[in-house]
Amino acid sequence: MVVRTSGGVTAPQGYTAAGIHAGLKRQRKDLSLLLSERPATTAGLFTTNRVQAAPVLLTRKRMAEAHARAIVVNSGNANACNGERGLADAERMAQATAEALGIKPEEVLVASTGVIGVPLPMEKIEAGIRAAAQALRADGGADAALGIMTTDTVPKEIAVTVSGDGYAYTIGGMAKGSGMIHPNMATMLAFITTDADVERSFLQESLKEAVDLSFNLISVDGDTSTNDMVVALANGAAGGPTIGAQSARAEEFQEALALVCTELAKMIARDGEGATKLVEVHVKGARTVADARTAVRSITCSPLVKTAIHGEDANWGRILCAAGYSGAEFDPADASVFLGDVKVCEHGVGLPFDEGVAAKVLAGDEVLLTVDLGAGSCEARGWTCDLTADYIRINGGYRT
Amino acid sequence: MVVRTSGGVTAPQGYTAAGIHAGLKRQRKDLSLLLSERPATTAGLFTTNRVQAAPVLLTRKRMAEAHARAIVVNSGNANACNGERGLADAERMAQATAEALGIKPEEVLVASTGVIGVPLPMEKIEAGIRAAAQALRADGGADAALGIMTTDTVPKEIAVTVSGDGYAYTIGGMAKGSGMIHPNMATMLAFITTDADVERSFLQESLKEAVDLSFNLISVDGDTSTNDMVVALANGAAGGPTIGAQSARAEEFQEALALVCTELAKMIARDGEGATKLVEVHVKGARTVADARTAVRSITCSPLVKTAIHGEDANWGRILCAAGYSGAEFDPADASVFLGDVKVCEHGVGLPFDEGVAAKVLAGDEVLLTVDLGAGSCEARGWTCDLTADYIRINGGYRT
Repeated sequence: MVVRTSGGVTAPQGYTAAGIHAGLKRQRKDLSLLLSERPATTAGLFTTNRVQAAPVLLTRKRMAEAHARAIVVNSGNANACNGERGLADAERMAQATAEALGIKPEEVLVASTGVIGVPLPMEKIEAGIRAAAQALRADGGADAALGIMTTDTVPKEIAVTVSGDGYAYTIGGMAKGSGMIHPNMATMLAFITTDADVERSFLQESLKEAVDLSFNLISVDGDTSTNDMVVALANGAAGGPTIGAQSARAEEFQEALALVCTELAKMIARDGEGATKLVEVHVKGARTVADARTAVRSITCSPLVKTAIHGEDANWGRILCAAGYSGAEFDPADASVFLGDVKVCEHGVGLPFDEGVAAKVLAGDEVLLTVDLGAGSCEARGWTCDLTADYIRINGGYRT
Repeated sequence: MVVRTSGGVTAPQGYTAAGIHAGLKRQRKDLSLLLSERPATTAGLFTTNRVQAAPVLLTRKRMAEAHARAIVVNSGNANACNGERGLADAERMAQATAEALGIKPEEVLVASTGVIGVPLPMEKIEAGIRAAAQALRADGGADAALGIMTTDTVPKEIAVTVSGDGYAYTIGGMAKGSGMIHPNMATMLAFITTDADVERSFLQESLKEAVDLSFNLISVDGDTSTNDMVVALANGAAGGPTIGAQSARAEEFQEALALVCTELAKMIARDGEGATKLVEVHVKGARTVADARTAVRSITCSPLVKTAIHGEDANWGRILCAAGYSGAEFDPADASVFLGDVKVCEHGVGLPFDEGVAAKVLAGDEVLLTVDLGAGSCEARGWTCDLTADYIRINGGYRT
């Protein structure tokens, strides 16, 4: 049984965390630390951008190690496009963290997010790491979720408890958005912890599946960042049996992990830069799951769809149009479009509909758009936000 | 010799045009007519969207005919997603045009642009066609360029005269943007006329090449519309020899046609919805032309690049990042980025640069961004505009 519980990355047993102000940002918290009391099995997925930030390169390499103990994350500076110095700085972050915690540098994963091409202020970072190590607490997850934020307006965390058959475990997570958000990893960091004992290959496979259903189906602006990563730690502190692909409760673990990732992904979409609404796009009647996801991505990425939703304009033609250029196979003459429950297009042709009812649907904080391609029985869901003048304001002067 | 001249589609001999107010829009001209005094050879390229408007379906079919005499275009209504009725209405537009001009319906090409999913008001259209036929003038190109506009703020037309070896001919063109603009045909209509006599297959091949260098390398918002088309007519009224692939002046014709298309494409990018700047993206040092174009498209489509340019922020990391996720093959450690002439990144690492000089570059009406991928010797140029709060305002309430 999977039940929502309170907290985030420190909800599972055996984790402590902290989020502090190191001075990269003017006032807000900008450095977070997460520590597992025992070595944790790791899994990770990283940006597909050819330009990869130094911490991504370092953490990918560390994934070859069997386990990890800590994750250090700074916001306000991406440590990307800084050449050799960037790589050395990422190593120094791991080194400083290891020293402050009395663990090995190889046991430290590093993540950064923020502006590209500016070297890290290492003195501030190193002092911040020492302060964070002092501040680690068993209920520090909320602070850690604050420390990884950039233009996010709210911290994003979630935890679920999974129980049955005489043992229970918890999965917690935190994430940050909120620009450069696009399928296949955006400036999106997510950290998942669990006190379940999970086989490494199964953890990686489950994380991949969960990310495909969640973070890879959200879009804020279509930009894929240089710094994305989703990392999962499983430390076994709950004391249950090891979960692997053949375990009786393997599927339950996968579902719980997917739930955690999906809820974090929706939080990111809802808090997209300048957003006022969460938009869920449901494509059904697709020939294949890949086609359904392709159409979902095309619709969630369309600025014309996103501005129409912002304007609360029942402009369904833009939705069908975005499905049309997605590459998904379908015949427009078989397609239907729904705004909420209101069918506005059938057989590819507009239906008369009550504009008042449609306006009510579009006025909500959460808007569901459904396209039935009429081409098969596969489906997918994805999430985005509306596109507003605030997105422009935020991104017109982010660096300076 | 290719020389710019005044006018647009009626600059070549043997064409008349008109643009009138038929009543689809409240006040502005919304219906244009173009007539060739003699049968013209045709070439055309159409939207790649799976959802294709009725006039696209009709005009594609008409391309199978050997020639055409007239093009009728309405703005304010796309006649897309209107099912059988839409197809019948497109046919009726051709029929009404043929009757008003005393030609065959098969000689009439039809184009529409505007809102999707609303049936055409055929009485207004038919009365408008009759009025436009009465208004045809040898200097009517400017009116026709007005009649095809939607959210465009300025009409877009150009003409060039090509001379040498004892004969001369003219190529004219008009186009409209200005949202849903994206590579591979957007809500973009362009009509090219020439009084040269051109072999049909060579005209099609030359148009394809010109479009690949121009309209397919601009982006306003990444949306590919249901209604795009680029159509060329060659009526031979200038009296020169037939131009074909083997002609001595074949290459000159291709260059002149590419110039006309490129200038129209730049006008569209500059007049993108809400735009205040034209942004030219030059990618060089690519392994292949395809890679260069891929990187150009990725950069011109990036909302983060476009908002940074709007904010006049020298945020070059976003430019390199967009090249990084484009799929083009290169090693970031070999890449350089220039804002205007200012090199801001070398070997993938930021250079110290004079922010004042960079700010001056970004403050211009036209901003050149150059990325040298350091991977080869191929290059491409593309165009976009900055992304502004006005884009949101325009698209938040387009339909209503």
